[in-house]
Amino acid sequence: MPLERIDHVGYAVEDLEDAIAYHRDLYDLTVVHRERMESDGVAEALLAIGESYIQLLEPLSDASPVARFMERNAGPGIHHVGYGVRDVAQTLDGLRGRGIRLVDDHPRRGSRGCTIAFVHPASAMGVLVELVEDPTLQ
Amino acid sequence: MPLERIDHVGYAVEDLEDAIAYHRDLYDLTVVHRERMESDGVAEALLAIGESYIQLLEPLSDASPVARFMERNAGPGIHHVGYGVRDVAQTLDGLRGRGIRLVDDHPRRGSRGCTIAFVHPASAMGVLVELVEDPTLQ
Repeated sequence: MPLERIDHVGYAVEDLEDAIAYHRDLYDLTVVHRERMESDGVAEALLAIGESYIQLLEPLSDASPVARFMERNAGPGIHHVGYGVRDVAQTLDGLRGRGIRLVDDHPRRGSRGCTIAFVHPASAMGVLVELVEDPTLQ
Repeated sequence: MPLERIDHVGYAVEDLEDAIAYHRDLYDLTVVHRERMESDGVAEALLAIGESYIQLLEPLSDASPVARFMERNAGPGIHHVGYGVRDVAQTLDGLRGRGIRLVDDHPRRGSRGCTIAFVHPASAMGVLVELVEDPTLQ
């Protein structure tokens, strides 16, 4: 199952408003979506860039995976990459059939109404990969 | 100076051929360019994905910045993000005027004939940012 595009790059940030202001002031990037994802322990903002987004992720608590990433990383930084696919379920089936370790065995709801699943970095050369099916692009 | 697109995400990999085979077999991604960049201490391969690339980077020696990244990171992973801009020189001037710390004070030659410059992660919320001016898109 081919990848259609880079849907987003996800940045772990300490303060969402600071990160939004930084990207607006330096690069004229605009917030096109905000969402609080309790299930993932983050407040997020999406900035439009070409056919992709920069996804800014501020942890909601110290237990958030993004907070734990910043501990390991000794600060903020690039957290993951999201690939746009046509069908997350079918892509997961293909990866599973090749023995790829998954974080999410089944597709689940992501932000902005997308269907998503994460692939484990241990099976992706150290990269935390998110598969994203965007219903507005089908 | 606005950002036009995500030009690429750069992955530090241990073995270029393995990484190419992985992306081809799992995701049908195709190599569109290869180059040995002695100045950056890497052998690279570019895989096309939408309007962007995945840039696979294998260090040419232990002294390569990408080798040092893998030491700090305890393995391969996401090394940097490349933003497409219309004019690297002008973008650098804008960043410098706002006190942003740069790795490259002046634009220099990157792979595939692009003009590039790196922004220091200390001034980019922990993200190593590359600015990319692609002459084929002007």
